[in-house]
Amino acid sequence: MPDVPWAPAASPGQLLRLLLDGVPRTRAELASQTGLTRAAVRTRLDALQDAGFLTDRGIRVSTGGRPAGRLAFNAAARSVLAADVGATHATVAVTDLAGGPLAVRRLGLDIADGPEPVLARLAETWRELVREAGVSSVSSAGVGIGLPGPVEHSSGKPNHPPIMPAWDGFDVPAHVRAEFDVPVLVDNEVNLMALGEHAHSFPCTDHMIVVKVATGIGSGFISNGVLHRGAVGAAGDLGHIQAPGSDDAPCSCGNTGCLEAVASGSAIAARLRAKGVEAHTSADVVALVRAGNVEAGQAIRQAGRTIGEVLAACVSMVNPSLIVVGGDLAAAGEMLLAGVREAVYRRSLPLATENLRIVPSRAGEVAGVLGAAAMVVHHVLSPSVVDQQLG
Amino acid sequence: MPDVPWAPAASPGQLLRLLLDGVPRTRAELASQTGLTRAAVRTRLDALQDAGFLTDRGIRVSTGGRPAGRLAFNAAARSVLAADVGATHATVAVTDLAGGPLAVRRLGLDIADGPEPVLARLAETWRELVREAGVSSVSSAGVGIGLPGPVEHSSGKPNHPPIMPAWDGFDVPAHVRAEFDVPVLVDNEVNLMALGEHAHSFPCTDHMIVVKVATGIGSGFISNGVLHRGAVGAAGDLGHIQAPGSDDAPCSCGNTGCLEAVASGSAIAARLRAKGVEAHTSADVVALVRAGNVEAGQAIRQAGRTIGEVLAACVSMVNPSLIVVGGDLAAAGEMLLAGVREAVYRRSLPLATENLRIVPSRAGEVAGVLGAAAMVVHHVLSPSVVDQQLG
Repeated sequence: MPDVPWAPAASPGQLLRLLLDGVPRTRAELASQTGLTRAAVRTRLDALQDAGFLTDRGIRVSTGGRPAGRLAFNAAARSVLAADVGATHATVAVTDLAGGPLAVRRLGLDIADGPEPVLARLAETWRELVREAGVSSVSSAGVGIGLPGPVEHSSGKPNHPPIMPAWDGFDVPAHVRAEFDVPVLVDNEVNLMALGEHAHSFPCTDHMIVVKVATGIGSGFISNGVLHRGAVGAAGDLGHIQAPGSDDAPCSCGNTGCLEAVASGSAIAARLRAKGVEAHTSADVVALVRAGNVEAGQAIRQAGRTIGEVLAACVSMVNPSLIVVGGDLAAAGEMLLAGVREAVYRRSLPLATENLRIVPSRAGEVAGVLGAAAMVVHHVLSPSVVDQQLG
Repeated sequence: MPDVPWAPAASPGQLLRLLLDGVPRTRAELASQTGLTRAAVRTRLDALQDAGFLTDRGIRVSTGGRPAGRLAFNAAARSVLAADVGATHATVAVTDLAGGPLAVRRLGLDIADGPEPVLARLAETWRELVREAGVSSVSSAGVGIGLPGPVEHSSGKPNHPPIMPAWDGFDVPAHVRAEFDVPVLVDNEVNLMALGEHAHSFPCTDHMIVVKVATGIGSGFISNGVLHRGAVGAAGDLGHIQAPGSDDAPCSCGNTGCLEAVASGSAIAARLRAKGVEAHTSADVVALVRAGNVEAGQAIRQAGRTIGEVLAACVSMVNPSLIVVGGDLAAAGEMLLAGVREAVYRRSLPLATENLRIVPSRAGEVAGVLGAAAMVVHHVLSPSVVDQQLG
């Protein structure tokens, strides 16, 4: 018989997927909906129930010996360990299998210390959070980590990450699996921010761009409801698109005129310093804007316009219905967004913008860590992984 | 019982999808691979065979009464009617259910005549081609049409198309269905060019951009192996992205500095005329380049660079592994491509371009019509549509 990658129809994993919509169902309903015999459905459901994935829910009516209880997905069956690592801090969380946070903590750390000490800090924090959340008796289903640089998602290895050279090519999953023997998934933090906003705030939006404006500028792009990582995981790299009218600004990437070189938190701070205003970080810029500093306000509005001009090209290319703006600098409020909107609506065709919304981040600081958890949940609840696990 | 949109596992349509890989299988193999009983598989296969979707293929070995012939997908079961309509011509085809062309014809027409006369020409041509291909006894499965403007794919209605105002909001599917009572799918011609290149030339490339450079400039974008149409079907609109350094060129869209205003066939022809060189259309420009006209050669190379600068932004955003360049102007050969490559490789990050190929169209003039057929095939062979038809 040819070796065809075809999962048996209505395997346990596919039955579970059916139940992920949250609607409890009886065994009879599941048999009817899958077209399988009741005996076949019973075997599969027993396996899922033994593994803890299902709970009995709802009214039990005896219909001649067989229980008619409704079965529902049990999100508490396993925990998920998630972390969103930035340059100088990390947000670490333990969630359930619905991606809902059970415990969250924010840490200071230095990504430049290299992978081993940073990953050890994460592991220690996960162990503490597992105790704190009271889920120490529940086994963990997987680990999800976001890193501030390009990551080859298929291998989980950072790929020439500019601000964390010590991590280049480091086998993050293998290192973490030595301690937690579960699937370990790694991705760029901005991709995970997009997954987090999509999963928790805008689950019905099929085409959206999530922009992070902080020390650097990046984005994550959801296409047809799925994260678009691109050929080598480099998609969404807004920061190194040439910004109109800024040909000569030198960028850390070696090129000139990149968006990041003129509109990022560090670029704005540098411009303010050149005008004699004391500012070194995104946070300084935001504090100045909030304090009513006119030059900082103008600078951030202009940065918004420049980001908007680059986003206008992306709007023409991918026609999203939503742009979410997050990151430290978005905390400055409406001034950044106003600049973005002004340029996007000026530069894009009416057809592409008539239903386009441009909004601030809803998930905020936890978008990335929720995205890391969502990535793991999606993987470990996929039918083939569930089936493999049930063996 | 709640009304859940869940197709019965291994329905006839899902069995057919299994066979679309082209590998013939016995009934026993299909039973084993789907996990269904042999009796259930037999019922479903009988329905597919009665509808003509399957043929017996391969060695028949009697194993105690039941035939062990191998069943295979029969692409000749139905025909597909496809058309790629441009401003002044159309390519019309009849294909089989594998999207393979059985008869193709190129017509002159004027899109400005409006939908009724143009669609009547297409219908007449399909009837002739069906006779020519000898498939008049085979019923057609569906109709696919590409139009040179924005189309709301879900309704099949053109959406404020600039060069074909008489078509705005016209219900193309309803009009065509009055004559051919089958599913009618309509999309933008550049989207269909992308589908055609993807289906026939690069089926294993998951992330690719297909650029059309002709009188106007547009593109189609394949993300995760699927055409990305965007929120309102406006994705891929390269032509109205601002080209760096061309702020003042007026564009037909009402804005200035659009790529189409400086690098399209009509923009190049206008620039050559300003230099005293006689050129009015893309074809004139290509003829001049081929005849060795230095100014035309320089103009087309510069157009390539400008297109490349806009594409560089798209490369940063979507990280494709392939860019295909087609359209009339691409017929000028390597000069256009050289300009595109020069700018893309200069402006994009090394990570995004290390595995990026930039190549001329392979499907050429028939890319759009093959894409129109591929769109129909994908729809009519989807499990739910097959099941509904057999139901």
